[in-house]
Amino acid sequence: MANIDKNSQSNLNAALFAVTLDRAAEPALHLQLAGALRTLVLSGSHGGQRLPASRLFAAELSISRLTVTAAYDQLIAEGYLVARQGSGTYIAEHLPHLIAPEPRPVSAPKPARVLPFHPGVPDQAGFPHRAWARHLERAWRAPAAGLLELADPFGWYPLRAAIAAHLAAWRGLDCTAEQVAITGGAWDGLDILRGAGLLRGRRLAMEDPGWPTLHRLVARAGMSPEPLRIDRDGFDPALIPPDISSAIVTPSRHYPTGTAMPLPRRLELLHWAEAEGGLIVEDDYDSEFRYQGQPLPSLAGLDGLRRVVYMGSFSKLLSPGLRIGYLVLPEVHLAAARDYLSVTGARASVLPQPALAEFMASGEFSTHLRRMRRTYARRQAWLLRELAPVGNLLKLTPDAAGMHLCLPLRPELRATDRQVAALASAQGLTVRALSAHAQLPDPPQALLLGYAAFAEEALAVAAKTLIEILHNI
Amino acid sequence: MANIDKNSQSNLNAALFAVTLDRAAEPALHLQLAGALRTLVLSGSHGGQRLPASRLFAAELSISRLTVTAAYDQLIAEGYLVARQGSGTYIAEHLPHLIAPEPRPVSAPKPARVLPFHPGVPDQAGFPHRAWARHLERAWRAPAAGLLELADPFGWYPLRAAIAAHLAAWRGLDCTAEQVAITGGAWDGLDILRGAGLLRGRRLAMEDPGWPTLHRLVARAGMSPEPLRIDRDGFDPALIPPDISSAIVTPSRHYPTGTAMPLPRRLELLHWAEAEGGLIVEDDYDSEFRYQGQPLPSLAGLDGLRRVVYMGSFSKLLSPGLRIGYLVLPEVHLAAARDYLSVTGARASVLPQPALAEFMASGEFSTHLRRMRRTYARRQAWLLRELAPVGNLLKLTPDAAGMHLCLPLRPELRATDRQVAALASAQGLTVRALSAHAQLPDPPQALLLGYAAFAEEALAVAAKTLIEILHNI
Repeated sequence: MANIDKNSQSNLNAALFAVTLDRAAEPALHLQLAGALRTLVLSGSHGGQRLPASRLFAAELSISRLTVTAAYDQLIAEGYLVARQGSGTYIAEHLPHLIAPEPRPVSAPKPARVLPFHPGVPDQAGFPHRAWARHLERAWRAPAAGLLELADPFGWYPLRAAIAAHLAAWRGLDCTAEQVAITGGAWDGLDILRGAGLLRGRRLAMEDPGWPTLHRLVARAGMSPEPLRIDRDGFDPALIPPDISSAIVTPSRHYPTGTAMPLPRRLELLHWAEAEGGLIVEDDYDSEFRYQGQPLPSLAGLDGLRRVVYMGSFSKLLSPGLRIGYLVLPEVHLAAARDYLSVTGARASVLPQPALAEFMASGEFSTHLRRMRRTYARRQAWLLRELAPVGNLLKLTPDAAGMHLCLPLRPELRATDRQVAALASAQGLTVRALSAHAQLPDPPQALLLGYAAFAEEALAVAAKTLIEILHNI
Repeated sequence: MANIDKNSQSNLNAALFAVTLDRAAEPALHLQLAGALRTLVLSGSHGGQRLPASRLFAAELSISRLTVTAAYDQLIAEGYLVARQGSGTYIAEHLPHLIAPEPRPVSAPKPARVLPFHPGVPDQAGFPHRAWARHLERAWRAPAAGLLELADPFGWYPLRAAIAAHLAAWRGLDCTAEQVAITGGAWDGLDILRGAGLLRGRRLAMEDPGWPTLHRLVARAGMSPEPLRIDRDGFDPALIPPDISSAIVTPSRHYPTGTAMPLPRRLELLHWAEAEGGLIVEDDYDSEFRYQGQPLPSLAGLDGLRRVVYMGSFSKLLSPGLRIGYLVLPEVHLAAARDYLSVTGARASVLPQPALAEFMASGEFSTHLRRMRRTYARRQAWLLRELAPVGNLLKLTPDAAGMHLCLPLRPELRATDRQVAALASAQGLTVRALSAHAQLPDPPQALLLGYAAFAEEALAVAAKTLIEILHNI
């Protein structure tokens, strides 16, 4: 301690004797004093110095000596101070990294806006926010028994029952609430299927083109994605290599081309799964929005939930930020999924679940879907009409369903879809290139134009910009 | 088609002509008819049979022939029917698995009740449910710009800012909102650290005993947990094998023994990380509930967020079902974490986030924590008093913090902690054995008794049962 100079020691004492304590305030005086001492220690410049004797310190602050010793004891216990027998109490030495970093300027980032033609985003203006907020308030002001206790890792039962009823009515899928597992989205869904051992082998057959995020998620979940070129009927099971027994597909509406898989191909796919003892994951992402004809019943429904896991989500229906999706599992896999989820815990927040269950059970959800279906059908027709001037450059084929159009490039357009996407991006449009959705070489060329989230006026303005871009190529 | 007998054909016609359509109802007649045909096809017993000519069918149902051809066309497009040139329309053959399974009886399962001494569950009666529900309603009746658009994968910014402010005030941790990433809990936290490449190598040093779920989560996240025996100062970095450079620890309050890591050991740990170029994950799960003295500042605060990632959660504060946790990341790792999250998407539902941000910013959250701290301190003292009759069998040492007691067995008790836990379970108590939290041989023996979620009367009744069990061993 010899090298601690007098100056520094008296600086410490001055700082200590300047401590002000508030007798009227919480917490107790000795805790206030301990807090002040801790701050001083953490300032980092007094390591190894001796603290004043408790009697002196108490007299300086006009407090009881017991208050000082209680504060010293607390900090000795915490390791900030060191008591030396017969010598007094010292500030611990060698406290690295104790100087608080400079405060940095903080400003909230601008939220990323959804620009025209962004696909897969639902309309917000049409969403019944007040009704939804009321359901939330009602569900949580006096939560039902069980909502806050030990959560079922499969999710809130009434929501699972509401989903089962919805799937029976809208997707021709006959399942029980017990088969529905609530997830936080596709990522959780894949992780559960993989973690619970439902997907045999590491390789997973996938559609190409397909959803690039899904491709990356599959890889992140520890599997090898095996992209297979789709044809006009969609995914072709005849292309699956013999050592692969799992596939993930979008039969109701191929993403992103919009192709619906016809019945014979569906049956081929189910036969393949049956023969291989394999598993098919049906990713059904927006088939509620069908404008002509009825939605095709789901592949899982056709199969009777034997070889098919159905994967659904509310992100296209309410908002991607909701992070609520679900799996519908064959009975035979329920125990394995439950075992896995018991280890990793429930995936989705319970918070939206009772409100969503009520929103569905009350019929407001179906009403909302039907209203959105009319809105989206109108927007699609409007967009196609607005794009008529470039009918010589793009194939303007209507789609019977969905939230975006996939418009193939005509040979008259002297540019690739990626070139158009880049030019559009520079003009503030989010136009996706179909070829960017492919892993295999020589992908088809088309533009993906989302229309669901944009009012007619916005679509008209954006269409004009796009037309100009195409005409100037 | 020769082998289709007349009988079966007339059965089909009888079924078809019995179809009833409702002119007043939605959807349009041809869609109603298509639906009825689809049901018939899916009943599975008519594969290969010919449908009646559209003119005949229309006459039988007293509808327009166009309605029939529109319905046929829809089902031909879907693949349920097949048109044969010059011969008519047939039901497709070979439709396997088309018979809907028998409806199964469904009943909601009883929610799992939280039984006395269950650790880690917060008190529900004391939670300000009405205020919380009001915040939810307010946040969602007219959602702020950006809440429903493209979510930042790090979460809702105002919540991240509120967490940073909370950590500065309660945990001595100086960080910016930018460093806070909202997660769905420990599972997501580990996955992000692993997926973003922050944890070098596959092996992760862990405390033993420790939280068994964490051990399993680490393994599920593709890492090898390396349990190291703690001593009276907690986790000892001197025990870490030379080829391991990552560790996950609970320095503020070791789980489940409650030991606080003293400052010298903390500094050793930070020196180890600095020397190894390693990373320490600080799991801080309930240190807001400190009854004597001030909470120790976090390890991450001591380190200035250089070699330490701070992992926190709201499950001990509000409810485990909320599934909201967070990571506070060193600046140098922000880009890698953002890259990874951009691929896998935001982890936590946005739904609770604006309400939680308001709940924190308004000060209600801190008020609630302080109130719970008083309640929990009272309950701990009460439980220790009630257990006085078994002071000869258990070491009844109070704990300065937390939501459960870890009471070591005295040699006078002729039973293992697991035996006591099993006997207690048979009497409807959730008593955890400390030895069940260990991976290494010869673990210490103690009982874990959670008290936070139980009113004094419930604790008194449960304590009586436990005393009886211990006296009868």
